[in-house]
Amino acid sequence: MKTREDALALDDADPLARLREQFHMPPGLIYLDGNSLGVMPKATPARVQQVVTQEWGVGLIGSWNSAGWMELAPRIGDKIARLIGARPGECVAADSTSVNLFKVLNAALSIARADDPKRTRIRTRIVSERSNFPTDLYIAEATAAERGCELVLADSPEAIPALLDERCAVLMLTHVNYSNGRMHDMAALSKAAHEAGALALWDLAHSAGAVPVDLSGSGADFAIGCGYKYLNGGPGAPAFVWVAPRHAERFWQPLAGWMGHAAPFEFTPGYRPAPGIRRYLCGTPAVISLAALECGVDTVLAAESLGGMEVLRAKSLALTRAFAELVETRCAGHSLTLVSPRDDAQRGSQVCFAHPTHGYAMVQALIARGVVGDFRAPQVLRFGFTPLTLRFVDVWDAVEHLRQMLQHEEWREARFNQKAAVT
Amino acid sequence: MKTREDALALDDADPLARLREQFHMPPGLIYLDGNSLGVMPKATPARVQQVVTQEWGVGLIGSWNSAGWMELAPRIGDKIARLIGARPGECVAADSTSVNLFKVLNAALSIARADDPKRTRIRTRIVSERSNFPTDLYIAEATAAERGCELVLADSPEAIPALLDERCAVLMLTHVNYSNGRMHDMAALSKAAHEAGALALWDLAHSAGAVPVDLSGSGADFAIGCGYKYLNGGPGAPAFVWVAPRHAERFWQPLAGWMGHAAPFEFTPGYRPAPGIRRYLCGTPAVISLAALECGVDTVLAAESLGGMEVLRAKSLALTRAFAELVETRCAGHSLTLVSPRDDAQRGSQVCFAHPTHGYAMVQALIARGVVGDFRAPQVLRFGFTPLTLRFVDVWDAVEHLRQMLQHEEWREARFNQKAAVT
Repeated sequence: MKTREDALALDDADPLARLREQFHMPPGLIYLDGNSLGVMPKATPARVQQVVTQEWGVGLIGSWNSAGWMELAPRIGDKIARLIGARPGECVAADSTSVNLFKVLNAALSIARADDPKRTRIRTRIVSERSNFPTDLYIAEATAAERGCELVLADSPEAIPALLDERCAVLMLTHVNYSNGRMHDMAALSKAAHEAGALALWDLAHSAGAVPVDLSGSGADFAIGCGYKYLNGGPGAPAFVWVAPRHAERFWQPLAGWMGHAAPFEFTPGYRPAPGIRRYLCGTPAVISLAALECGVDTVLAAESLGGMEVLRAKSLALTRAFAELVETRCAGHSLTLVSPRDDAQRGSQVCFAHPTHGYAMVQALIARGVVGDFRAPQVLRFGFTPLTLRFVDVWDAVEHLRQMLQHEEWREARFNQKAAVT
Repeated sequence: MKTREDALALDDADPLARLREQFHMPPGLIYLDGNSLGVMPKATPARVQQVVTQEWGVGLIGSWNSAGWMELAPRIGDKIARLIGARPGECVAADSTSVNLFKVLNAALSIARADDPKRTRIRTRIVSERSNFPTDLYIAEATAAERGCELVLADSPEAIPALLDERCAVLMLTHVNYSNGRMHDMAALSKAAHEAGALALWDLAHSAGAVPVDLSGSGADFAIGCGYKYLNGGPGAPAFVWVAPRHAERFWQPLAGWMGHAAPFEFTPGYRPAPGIRRYLCGTPAVISLAALECGVDTVLAAESLGGMEVLRAKSLALTRAFAELVETRCAGHSLTLVSPRDDAQRGSQVCFAHPTHGYAMVQALIARGVVGDFRAPQVLRFGFTPLTLRFVDVWDAVEHLRQMLQHEEWREARFNQKAAVT
């Protein structure tokens, strides 16, 4: 891809191009932030309106049955399962990513303790990465403190294997790193964890809907993920949780709420967990937000007839490869350093550059030009590439905006150097 | 209220009558189930549509700032605070009731342990009622098991004080009982708990928006509550959590997610809780469902200029008193036994009757006539009275339907005796 015409030709030949029509794309915007908040599917407003005005407004309490509200969480879970290499009945949509992590991390610690053949009581470590997404580390830190465990952080992916020893209970990683887009080898690391007698827990926040995931084939033990990024579920969409069937019924999850009870409407005082993954539900689900999430998941499933996640992945890699190459060639000399892997096998669906001092202002100046990426402290300019919605010409145009912005030093403008609360 | 004309006259004189215009009331329905799912405010569909199509669809990620999504949870919390005797900054909307209970129950147990002057380690009991709502008992059961504590259940409200001794860490009660409408004396029981060296935790699921609550004045330590009952927030609306300021900063809550961090967008690996109630946030909030909740809370706040919760309470008591009396006089001889308190001071905003054998079918037969109450196993017919939406004539007509249904023994029809999953 050397010219804008090359980009247009690639779009003409793209078998996934028509999937973009599923979305409302604000005119004049090149949106490279679907890894933070996916764009709105055209189907969502009408579906949400139906839930609000008909199912709730008219059907009222009866809609728990007649409109199938009770089945929303497992039905959406089954749909997400198709995107992450899981089987029906293994996944549910529920709560937030943070809350779901708490559920499965506690279950994993209980299992690791119960299964430790030597009963040495030294298997008390949660191993993760210092660069993991903060909420994962916060939940793990609090859980470790509560349970007399220890959170041990690797300073680089390469340092992880050495931490997998007889002290490790759970290896807890985000599959694709939020701040640099580096992707772990899920199968290899899950295997290494198992060989050390530990369990493997994966956060799929930047994977589900973005890269092929094979939870069953990789030997993963637990997984959680986010509904509002590549699944396009809307702001704060409910998250999802997956448990390998071999573990699902071994332990209560700590958030033993009524929706995870075997018979919630018997109103019995004693807790009896539902069989399988349903026990990972907790309270009453946020129906309106769940309905929006389903519309988002459906936009990704629409790719199934065109080859599914493998074909989406091929386009994603082509987009991110082209973006990285174009920035490095056309925007050279501005101290931007690629921090995402060049190796396709190690790169998620985003491209990140570091700038030593002015990354925040640069992102703001780009947004002013209609190119939306985001900044991740302390110095990363982050660009996400959702293959469902982005064209090759968007990549070209985004780089051209970046080039012009840098050439004109637009980031020097004072208004771009006022840090907002959310970047 | 002896005749339908009396009822109409009461409606004519009702200063709250115009508040009903805030809601979409499905024609032909007498909805006595606002204590399970409140009816839809007319303002909600447009507000939800604005969030979906404009704030998300057009504003995309920028709406976290420009549309104030970051401030939704505390802003709605401040509004709910006005209904429950709390001050601004003490309450947030977040997660589900079950998840919020988990947060505050764990904090309460930690505080009770830390404050036990004798360090006897015997203060390990969570005291509640066997008839408390099941999800509260399930969460407490799981928490007790995890923390080496014990859940002790009183068989009646009268048996509670005897359980408040040096072994009690937390008294955990639902203010208004879900299945019989009996209301506890929050101030007296909180005081009794404190005198025993324990803390008082209140579930306001059937109180917020239904009866006056004075958390500050009653000495309560923690409270949680539901957004989709009397607050009319929509199916599965986010819940709320309140912590007395004296406790708010003493402990991390166990669900230490990034939205409760002091600086979530600094992306630092170590958890540092936000000051005050904001630490009781966890993951990214479900923005669409939160926006609907705010519309619901606003419908209750609309009563403030007319006298607020005190005036709503007066109407609620008049409605429930009239319903109980009319059923007992006009439906006598059908084995219906009032299980809600006759004493106004002990009755929430619902009226419940027990039938020894056919309660479920009777509720179904009433629903077929357009009178929606619900059944709570094993034998309770439950009728909720939302003073914002119900008229005295609705009370009259509901009882007349009940009378005719019983007289014609419509509950004998086979279709009413097939139990559905949700009742």
